[in-house]
Amino acid sequence: MTADDARLVFAAARVARLATADARGVPHLVPLVFAVDGDVVVSAVDAKPKRTTALRRLANVRANPHVALLADHYDDADWAALWWVRADGTARVLEPGDAAARRGVALLRQRYAQYRERPPEGPVLEVAVTRWSGWRAR
Amino acid sequence: MTADDARLVFAAARVARLATADARGVPHLVPLVFAVDGDVVVSAVDAKPKRTTALRRLANVRANPHVALLADHYDDADWAALWWVRADGTARVLEPGDAAARRGVALLRQRYAQYRERPPEGPVLEVAVTRWSGWRAR
Repeated sequence: MTADDARLVFAAARVARLATADARGVPHLVPLVFAVDGDVVVSAVDAKPKRTTALRRLANVRANPHVALLADHYDDADWAALWWVRADGTARVLEPGDAAARRGVALLRQRYAQYRERPPEGPVLEVAVTRWSGWRAR
Repeated sequence: MTADDARLVFAAARVARLATADARGVPHLVPLVFAVDGDVVVSAVDAKPKRTTALRRLANVRANPHVALLADHYDDADWAALWWVRADGTARVLEPGDAAARRGVALLRQRYAQYRERPPEGPVLEVAVTRWSGWRAR
């Protein structure tokens, strides 16, 4: 898959997983909803039940900006249908009041009805993608 | 979700994502099929199309054994149905001839018909899980 194809496939996915790592290189992994804006992927910290996880993710990015995001398709009955796309890059945490954060939330609300009903109120994670890659079984 | 619940839910999932990081803390992310054996998660490197990715994953683990694995459920229409489970631990690479690698492949072949038809021939990644955790929206 070319980088352009990977970006298109990633942008159309509804969920991705974010890998961060702390300053010692210990990885952390969470699923998230997101929006793609050119070579930027935005996501937001929303509800309180995920508070601890959210803090870990943000603390990691502040200590070590390198991140990876993955979207994939799995089909137990047909491994020929499998694909994945990955966005590698660097992240920064935007405080809710920030103009870029507001733009990110607007993009997320366009994509997800749940965010239109109730916008995410926490910080926004902005990933500047330096490499799009992907693989298809066929 | 308790650690025991998280382990049970993880063990029943069909696909997970593996986060590794290199010695500099740059994360890498791939989807994988796996089997759970107590507090160990095994996966294998299979076909040649994934060769580069497979090497990266294994090189990272050799340089930095800390890994995270995530399985999750996403439902665009019902965010109340969302859940995720995570296994944090340390990994080692087993060469195909190794007794533990053969046991791992046997477990994978029990779980996946595709592996029964054609066993994975490459190294086996064994993750010793030090923490099971999880979250359910409801």
